[in-house]
Amino acid sequence: MLIEKKIPFRYVFRKIKNDVFRVLLFSIAFHLLKLFFSEHLPLIPFQLPTILGISISLLLAFKLNQSYDRWWEARKVWGAIVNDSRSLVLQLKSFMNEDLLGVEGALAIKRLAYRQIAWCYCLGQSLRGLEPIAEKQNELLREEDLSFIRTQSNKPFALLMLHVGDLKELHRKGAVNDFQQVQLDSTVVRLCDSMGKAERINNTVFPVTYGLFLHFFIYLFLVILSLGLVETIGLYEIPVLTLIASTFFLIEKTAKHMQDPFRNKPTDTSVTAIARTIEINIKQVLQDKNVPKPVPAEEFYIM
Amino acid sequence: MLIEKKIPFRYVFRKIKNDVFRVLLFSIAFHLLKLFFSEHLPLIPFQLPTILGISISLLLAFKLNQSYDRWWEARKVWGAIVNDSRSLVLQLKSFMNEDLLGVEGALAIKRLAYRQIAWCYCLGQSLRGLEPIAEKQNELLREEDLSFIRTQSNKPFALLMLHVGDLKELHRKGAVNDFQQVQLDSTVVRLCDSMGKAERINNTVFPVTYGLFLHFFIYLFLVILSLGLVETIGLYEIPVLTLIASTFFLIEKTAKHMQDPFRNKPTDTSVTAIARTIEINIKQVLQDKNVPKPVPAEEFYIM
Amino acid sequence: MLIEKKIPFRYVFRKIKNDVFRVLLFSIAFHLLKLFFSEHLPLIPFQLPTILGISISLLLAFKLNQSYDRWWEARKVWGAIVNDSRSLVLQLKSFMNEDLLGVEGALAIKRLAYRQIAWCYCLGQSLRGLEPIAEKQNELLREEDLSFIRTQSNKPFALLMLHVGDLKELHRKGAVNDFQQVQLDSTVVRLCDSMGKAERINNTVFPVTYGLFLHFFIYLFLVILSLGLVETIGLYEIPVLTLIASTFFLIEKTAKHMQDPFRNKPTDTSVTAIARTIEINIKQVLQDKNVPKPVPAEEFYIM
Amino acid sequence: MLIEKKIPFRYVFRKIKNDVFRVLLFSIAFHLLKLFFSEHLPLIPFQLPTILGISISLLLAFKLNQSYDRWWEARKVWGAIVNDSRSLVLQLKSFMNEDLLGVEGALAIKRLAYRQIAWCYCLGQSLRGLEPIAEKQNELLREEDLSFIRTQSNKPFALLMLHVGDLKELHRKGAVNDFQQVQLDSTVVRLCDSMGKAERINNTVFPVTYGLFLHFFIYLFLVILSLGLVETIGLYEIPVLTLIASTFFLIEKTAKHMQDPFRNKPTDTSVTAIARTIEINIKQVLQDKNVPKPVPAEEFYIM
Amino acid sequence: MLIEKKIPFRYVFRKIKNDVFRVLLFSIAFHLLKLFFSEHLPLIPFQLPTILGISISLLLAFKLNQSYDRWWEARKVWGAIVNDSRSLVLQLKSFMNEDLLGVEGALAIKRLAYRQIAWCYCLGQSLRGLEPIAEKQNELLREEDLSFIRTQSNKPFALLMLHVGDLKELHRKGAVNDFQQVQLDSTVVRLCDSMGKAERINNTVFPVTYGLFLHFFIYLFLVILSLGLVETIGLYEIPVLTLIASTFFLIEKTAKHMQDPFRNKPTDTSVTAIARTIEINIKQVLQDKNVPKPVPAEEFYIM
Repeated sequence: MLIEKKIPFRYVFRKIKNDVFRVLLFSIAFHLLKLFFSEHLPLIPFQLPTILGISISLLLAFKLNQSYDRWWEARKVWGAIVNDSRSLVLQLKSFMNEDLLGVEGALAIKRLAYRQIAWCYCLGQSLRGLEPIAEKQNELLREEDLSFIRTQSNKPFALLMLHVGDLKELHRKGAVNDFQQVQLDSTVVRLCDSMGKAERINNTVFPVTYGLFLHFFIYLFLVILSLGLVETIGLYEIPVLTLIASTFFLIEKTAKHMQDPFRNKPTDTSVTAIARTIEINIKQVLQDKNVPKPVPAEEFYIM
Repeated sequence: MLIEKKIPFRYVFRKIKNDVFRVLLFSIAFHLLKLFFSEHLPLIPFQLPTILGISISLLLAFKLNQSYDRWWEARKVWGAIVNDSRSLVLQLKSFMNEDLLGVEGALAIKRLAYRQIAWCYCLGQSLRGLEPIAEKQNELLREEDLSFIRTQSNKPFALLMLHVGDLKELHRKGAVNDFQQVQLDSTVVRLCDSMGKAERINNTVFPVTYGLFLHFFIYLFLVILSLGLVETIGLYEIPVLTLIASTFFLIEKTAKHMQDPFRNKPTDTSVTAIARTIEINIKQVLQDKNVPKPVPAEEFYIM
Repeated sequence: MLIEKKIPFRYVFRKIKNDVFRVLLFSIAFHLLKLFFSEHLPLIPFQLPTILGISISLLLAFKLNQSYDRWWEARKVWGAIVNDSRSLVLQLKSFMNEDLLGVEGALAIKRLAYRQIAWCYCLGQSLRGLEPIAEKQNELLREEDLSFIRTQSNKPFALLMLHVGDLKELHRKGAVNDFQQVQLDSTVVRLCDSMGKAERINNTVFPVTYGLFLHFFIYLFLVILSLGLVETIGLYEIPVLTLIASTFFLIEKTAKHMQDPFRNKPTDTSVTAIARTIEINIKQVLQDKNVPKPVPAEEFYIM
Repeated sequence: MLIEKKIPFRYVFRKIKNDVFRVLLFSIAFHLLKLFFSEHLPLIPFQLPTILGISISLLLAFKLNQSYDRWWEARKVWGAIVNDSRSLVLQLKSFMNEDLLGVEGALAIKRLAYRQIAWCYCLGQSLRGLEPIAEKQNELLREEDLSFIRTQSNKPFALLMLHVGDLKELHRKGAVNDFQQVQLDSTVVRLCDSMGKAERINNTVFPVTYGLFLHFFIYLFLVILSLGLVETIGLYEIPVLTLIASTFFLIEKTAKHMQDPFRNKPTDTSVTAIARTIEINIKQVLQDKNVPKPVPAEEFYIM
Repeated sequence: MLIEKKIPFRYVFRKIKNDVFRVLLFSIAFHLLKLFFSEHLPLIPFQLPTILGISISLLLAFKLNQSYDRWWEARKVWGAIVNDSRSLVLQLKSFMNEDLLGVEGALAIKRLAYRQIAWCYCLGQSLRGLEPIAEKQNELLREEDLSFIRTQSNKPFALLMLHVGDLKELHRKGAVNDFQQVQLDSTVVRLCDSMGKAERINNTVFPVTYGLFLHFFIYLFLVILSLGLVETIGLYEIPVLTLIASTFFLIEKTAKHMQDPFRNKPTDTSVTAIARTIEINIKQVLQDKNVPKPVPAEEFYIM
């Protein structure tokens, strides 16, 4: 997630340098063309680029809106993960019959709580296409859990399977009653849903042709605008066109980055920082001594 | 679902060739008309196509948005199917009283889990209007289940009926308690809802007149634009008009394809690939040896 | 619901003939005025109709979007009715303790299932303002149920009251346990909610002044456009203005029809066909011999 | 709620007469200015009002959309109140163990059902800022309930407190079992939620500065348009500007009225009529003799 | 929350004075430039600022809409907090087995109810970045609760932990049965969700680049508009440009303020006033003598 610090110019510029360079090239090209063959070029009436420009702005604004909705949906999914992770641990503490289980009960809560933390880190990593069993997991999971998830292709789902096994065991031993088992099961189902939603956003390509035609449409607009401008403002055309093109491309890129919030880029949903928040909250519930600090921000973003 | 590979030009072109050809024809026609009867043609003020062009862009942008919402809703429904399929199997594993049933319980879980996989494939096929009992189902379903669903008109619904019968039997035998039965029933109800939602999207025609009038409106705009352009840019009119028309028609087609995400076309929701993912996940829960590979992508799309 | 067959021209034309005729009249009137008093008419700058035209397109596009949302919401409500009707019967089959009730239980399921089918038809009829106790109900309901609902003003709600009475009786006899009663009650509550939502859409007039001012705004635009066009394109004005007006009015009418999806018109939500689908599905669950055919489409629509 | 009868012109006109009068004044003022100091006035290029006009239309269309959403949300809340009121009474009838309570049970149902009707009227009145304990309540509530709510500041909430007390008593006496108590409690929680939502819509001022700046923006547009028009269309400017201004102000006012649906105005959500519908429905469930008629419409609206 | 009183001019002006001053500066600069080097400046065709102006209006309108949605979502979250706080106390009163606990039960309800009030104030303060344990908390919480939350980093979450502990104790003593415990747990989970949602809105920066590019785009538009205007309207350009710029910047700022509804500013969601409403409602349920007055409005806003 980008934060409200000074975003370096080179970061912004790198995003659009290819497109802007192409626009620079053809606006120079048209300018030269104009100098030598001015009588053969059409006299584009200025309303034509007006229509195209407004059409594109409209489509771009709607696309930006849809991308924003995707980005916000991804953020909501991770918000739900925060809530359900905290609720799961609170419910465990609240429901567990300690009279019956004593130390074993406390250990079971700790095991489930730590695995829940590990699940958050693991899901974040796996959405970003990074190694899902990172060093954090080695610290939080038992050896037998680690060796189980190594055999499974969908690691975060494997962790939920282990949760479900533990809850079944707790129910069998009478540590949670029938109602409480069903209530805990509902929380696990919600976590499973959130995982599925994040996977859906990550795996569903934003309609490809839509973006493609829009990109082509922007170029068509710029070419026709360029033809229209040469006549009227001469050499000024080159900077004016480049600036306008930059803005359109920047907005297009902003939409593109918001569409895919799990790409291991600065514009990502900050899943690592969120997992850390969950770790802090859960460890405070456990009254654990070893509470970590929040993830610090990078130069201008937070992961 | 189209994937972010190079989409072949012929695929894009085939979508709009009829409309573009028609535009080409009448722009040539107007050009000829102009050459011979220029004094009888009206001098369309250029603001007229501006108004029409912007109106159409607006309506098109809104339609694209509504189509996108439909497409995204279809994808969400299939996301919910993934989540609920996985949850169903996890819940079965978690709830089943194995002390009571032993091997029979394990078999019951496997039967339900396999039928759940079969249901996903069957629903996908039936939404696309393909043969719902494909070879996959023969492999996953018992002979008696197959012969039952052959007698029923709504195959996926028939599979859910069989689920419900099995769950009733498990409850009667005491393998799941009263709470758990109700919780499992809720999951089946959610699957039944998702099926109903997918059928709704599939069976509800996007308001016909809306699309029709918009199509007519685009032609009206192009004719008036053509009349306005002949005067000013001469022969250049033909390529300019064709390019603009292409973009409008491409965007209209994109909307049209997104409206109907279960038409056995490359732009479909990738229900086969999703069903395969569910198969992989469920088989890993069952610790089945025979886990298949994900569905590979076609040339530029995935089904 | 209109279907994707050829929609007859007379159907489309009938919708807007009054408005188009009015536009034809005043565009001719202005033309004549122009011939005789051209020097007294204002020289409307063409940007004025541009502003108005774009404003109207915007408001129209938003209105179309809101109408579409209402239409889609109505369709979703009926989708939920399909799902909950099917779920209700599946749940009854799944929960009913047959050991206890035997034949009586099977009869109870059949009675509730048939009444559920009757409820769907009855709700559809009553939303459309038609006779809610049609011949279908006579076939599906018992005589005592029929005589009860005749005494009640809200017929579909009366059928739900009878459902509730039956479920209470089944619970009292021990045919469903405490959990199952509550779960069945939830399904009935959802049906009651869907009924209320459909009534809400049907009874809530779309903000009247909004539509009124927009209609007036379209006329203002057409008058000013007409004044602007006379000068420039002469006699061509009449067909051009009529075509543009037609498109605006067609889109306005499309919005109007989508707003009210239960008016016994071809653009309605196809509640009869949906009720038939429910009948087919439920009768297959009951393994009834007498499964009807789907409702056939009319000329270009389905009710 | 305005109904689709003829809305009197004086009602529409009264809404905007101040703004229109102001526009009339300054368009006359500019006209006079023009006659005497034409050489000192700027020659506003007509594209300037075009930009402003389209910007305002956009902002106005979005605002109208947000207001519509608020209005529709208010209507949905009252739709949920209808559904949950009916469900509450149906559930009471369905759950109550009559064997145990006999006449006392029937009385308890009637008391709760009547109080539910009273709650609907009371909530409606209190949202509109009218006396919440009207004559209707005197008829429906027991003396002790009336004297209790008189001591409380939030009357509708006080009625829910009484509901909760009664349900507790019924549970204590064994008239409803543990499950049923929880299910009834859920219905009361939903009613409490709907009340809170209606209060939220009523108490949250639509962002003030947003509306303020838009109103100022419309004036800026009209002034600049007026300056632009004087030159071109002379005396015709006055009626043209007044008409255009009227339409903009009418649409702005429509948005304003939809924002606040509980202001005791003709554009209100028709809470009295809805409460009456609930009364009719509930009394029919109770098989009460004394069923009232629906609320008749006023001249052109229904409260 | 701003209220519908007269908003002081200085408040509005302070928001945009820097941007307006910059616009004033460069419009004077261009004017001077024009006087001395008019022949070297490009003759910007007026359609260019038209395209840019409409594009920006579009993007601004969409951004305003997204900000409005965020603002309304924040208000909804606090509406849910009102509802769930009231429901929690109603449920406690309704469920608590007083026969068993007597005075102790009443004390437990009071302790939980007071802590719920404290939680609302504490959450509001902590969202605004103020001291979360204010004097109000000292009055409402027991000394042991205060010392516990002092050791925790997330104070409102710590209060919920204490709630959960109390509810567990009540269940262990038999004051609430198994069903009721689960129902109360659901209410606490909903409160935990609302807290998480408010934190999400507060911690998620609105996409930074989006706002940045839009701000830059507005300047680009104003520069090009300025270049276009100098020629045509001379010295009038300076006030016209400043007024137009002010409106654009005001609307941009309105969007910016609505994005972040917990910043301890007059445009905030009025969390203190809402917490006070909850206090009043809960204290009336407890029939507490000491009911406070609603929070009075400040000059033109309410916190």
